[in-house]
Amino acid sequence: TTKFSGIQRFSSDASKVTCKGNGLQNAFRNKQSTFTVDTTGAGNNILYIGMMGPKGPCEELTVKHEGTNRYSVNYIVKEIGTYMLIVRWGDQDIPGSPFSVECQ
Amino acid sequence: TTKFSGIQRFSSDASKVTCKGNGLQNAFRNKQSTFTVDTTGAGNNILYIGMMGPKGPCEELTVKHEGTNRYSVNYIVKEIGTYMLIVRWGDQDIPGSPFSVECQ
Repeated sequence: TTKFSGIQRFSSDASKVTCKGNGLQNAFRNKQSTFTVDTTGAGNNILYIGMMGPKGPCEELTVKHEGTNRYSVNYIVKEIGTYMLIVRWGDQDIPGSPFSVECQ
Repeated sequence: TTKFSGIQRFSSDASKVTCKGNGLQNAFRNKQSTFTVDTTGAGNNILYIGMMGPKGPCEELTVKHEGTNRYSVNYIVKEIGTYMLIVRWGDQDIPGSPFSVECQ
């Protein structure tokens, strides 16, 4: 829309986004878990992260832009169990998403 | 999917989600901006926040679950200009989203 005329058009391919880190598989209650996301070659869009556990959402989730195409994600969970971790590049899930994270 | 059988089914109405705070309209470079989101009556889903400025994404964005149906969002921007702030409850934008945030 004209309201955001300074912003680049979104044109992207979520299948090119990669991510890595223990936080994609495991977490420990009340401790910070981490993973990184690299959108090199995936075009221009917005990174969305969401996380849901057996008893509700994760406690706290931070996305930092670390420089061109690179992001780090830190989160804290409070409940034991399997969390669903969703990583989207615009409207599309990246490869592997939703991730299944075991929290102990 | 069966992998996430412990997680409640998503059934929600993004039009019931409300939000408030200066961070929905204004921000100052390198300072924390804040707003809150209340999903009371909006069912069960995942909150997604994204923010894009004239030169790229916002520097850092944190979503905290403050208790039943309440979230606080803090972010830091590094560039002057109009940022697009997107607040989604599942796949749907909440009322007012995308927000236009003037950063100075």
